[in-house]
Amino acid sequence: MRAGRPPSPAVVALGGGHGLSASLSALRLMTDRITAVVTVADDGGSSGRLREELDVLPPGDLRMALAALCDDSDWGRTWRDVLQHRFASTGSLDRHAVGNLLIVAIWELLGDTVEGLDLVGRLLGARGRVLPMAAVPLEIEADVRRSDGSLVVVRGQSSVALTAEPITRVRLVPAEPAACPEALAAVAEADWVVLGPGSWYTSVLPHLLVPALRDALLATSAPIVLTLNLEPEAQGETDGMRAEAHLDALREHAATLRVHTIVADPAAVEDVDAVTERARAMGARLLLRQVSRGDGTGRHDPLRLAAAYRDVIEGFLGDVVRRQT
Amino acid sequence: MRAGRPPSPAVVALGGGHGLSASLSALRLMTDRITAVVTVADDGGSSGRLREELDVLPPGDLRMALAALCDDSDWGRTWRDVLQHRFASTGSLDRHAVGNLLIVAIWELLGDTVEGLDLVGRLLGARGRVLPMAAVPLEIEADVRRSDGSLVVVRGQSSVALTAEPITRVRLVPAEPAACPEALAAVAEADWVVLGPGSWYTSVLPHLLVPALRDALLATSAPIVLTLNLEPEAQGETDGMRAEAHLDALREHAATLRVHTIVADPAAVEDVDAVTERARAMGARLLLRQVSRGDGTGRHDPLRLAAAYRDVIEGFLGDVVRRQT
Repeated sequence: MRAGRPPSPAVVALGGGHGLSASLSALRLMTDRITAVVTVADDGGSSGRLREELDVLPPGDLRMALAALCDDSDWGRTWRDVLQHRFASTGSLDRHAVGNLLIVAIWELLGDTVEGLDLVGRLLGARGRVLPMAAVPLEIEADVRRSDGSLVVVRGQSSVALTAEPITRVRLVPAEPAACPEALAAVAEADWVVLGPGSWYTSVLPHLLVPALRDALLATSAPIVLTLNLEPEAQGETDGMRAEAHLDALREHAATLRVHTIVADPAAVEDVDAVTERARAMGARLLLRQVSRGDGTGRHDPLRLAAAYRDVIEGFLGDVVRRQT
Repeated sequence: MRAGRPPSPAVVALGGGHGLSASLSALRLMTDRITAVVTVADDGGSSGRLREELDVLPPGDLRMALAALCDDSDWGRTWRDVLQHRFASTGSLDRHAVGNLLIVAIWELLGDTVEGLDLVGRLLGARGRVLPMAAVPLEIEADVRRSDGSLVVVRGQSSVALTAEPITRVRLVPAEPAACPEALAAVAEADWVVLGPGSWYTSVLPHLLVPALRDALLATSAPIVLTLNLEPEAQGETDGMRAEAHLDALREHAATLRVHTIVADPAAVEDVDAVTERARAMGARLLLRQVSRGDGTGRHDPLRLAAAYRDVIEGFLGDVVRRQT
């Protein structure tokens, strides 16, 4: 069974950091109708310092998403490289990403977050649009189970991301932030929604904790594609956590979310039966495909991931799913 | 006598800071074949801090020149405003101009000063090109006469610019810096050269102290238009210094420079005979025209200055010069 091929599907990709860059780098090969919806809870590095000094949304994940969508021309790539450039000095500019400074300045000048991101998108010739998941800067707070069984609260995305002990729950502070209206509209009007890959507790699940965004994801008629990570992070929030545990964590934070397809790399799934069982409970099919570069970097390959998304979107799944599951 | 009207003359404007912005804002109304050649000796403010932290050319005067040449469209004006925006905080970004950070980052990325400035020019849709007067960061050193008659040496553009006692001489450190080759070529190929207005000792005369640039200005067949300042700076390097003293200072630093026309506002010339005498000694005509805004800001009016330059370039001078002198 093959579904019709939509000429250029409208896709909303939710996530943050390198994981979102991976899904965007793949999606841009298939469509230019992309809306990236990006976490705004970073409190480390250049973004954390800007947030502290200038009281703004942390721009770093937004900058990375814009960079991933840049036009494939000398102009687009040059400005992408400028935005991604980081100063190196013994002074106060050290490690600041130029794009972070530029985005924040544009926000100050225009007084409008979305308009500012659209302007940077036009500079880059971006294929699509980048939006924040919430209208206000967020903090992430996690319940973490210590080895003695007690629960402690860890606060701040950069601290949560480095937590080596198991996380049982994440929350946002403030608890019920307003969503970005343009992001809600994009989810409602999407042909497809892509969630993940990315740091599970700090870049993927937070989207389900913004009430209006969560409601939009539960209500949209667009099928949701969940992309699992390639390997447990060597050190940090999902240290040693298997694929099925990622799905359990998702269900604990959004029990009623229906998923169309789960895309996973076979090398990242030890127990296919366990993952398939969780997938079925979410209404999802499991698509096992090599989507890694296979070069030991633990990064997704944009071309292979694009091929997987294309197969999902074009409906080339029948026999593959049967064979794999 | 009226010279033929060249459709779009190639003009090189030399200076720095607000003075150069004034001449560029006027020239852009007449031609898009503009090359701005800009002092690179600033050691104060945002530029001074960047120069110190990152060991680069001070970008501030270059940024201002680019901003003055921006395209007169929403896009051009928006990016001009972004580049001119300054952060305001209690932290380390306070008072940094965004365009300074951007220019320096592009230099680091591209490894080429002129290529980097051309890229920013393309972003702004700039009418013309902005080049540094020298290939290396410079310092300005001034001999200053104290009230007891003794001479002291003041070093650093920001210190020299604030010197209230009379300056007798300025020098560059290093003393014989290499010029920017593209600036030399522009002077050689120009139809007209415009020098000033601007801070006399720190933005105008320094161009005559870069050996190859001075030689190019002495050798070019392009007539040189010298634009005098509107009023002595209330506090600083030319405090109380009259128009004829500005011309004396120029001749002391470049005795053989031939000038075609000196443009001055009548309100800034107390002794017309004295100024006319100096003008004749430089081979120049004196054109007295209101070129101020007349609003008490002490700034040039781009429209009036453009009209004066147009009259010089188109040769509408005969009776005006006769009447005024």
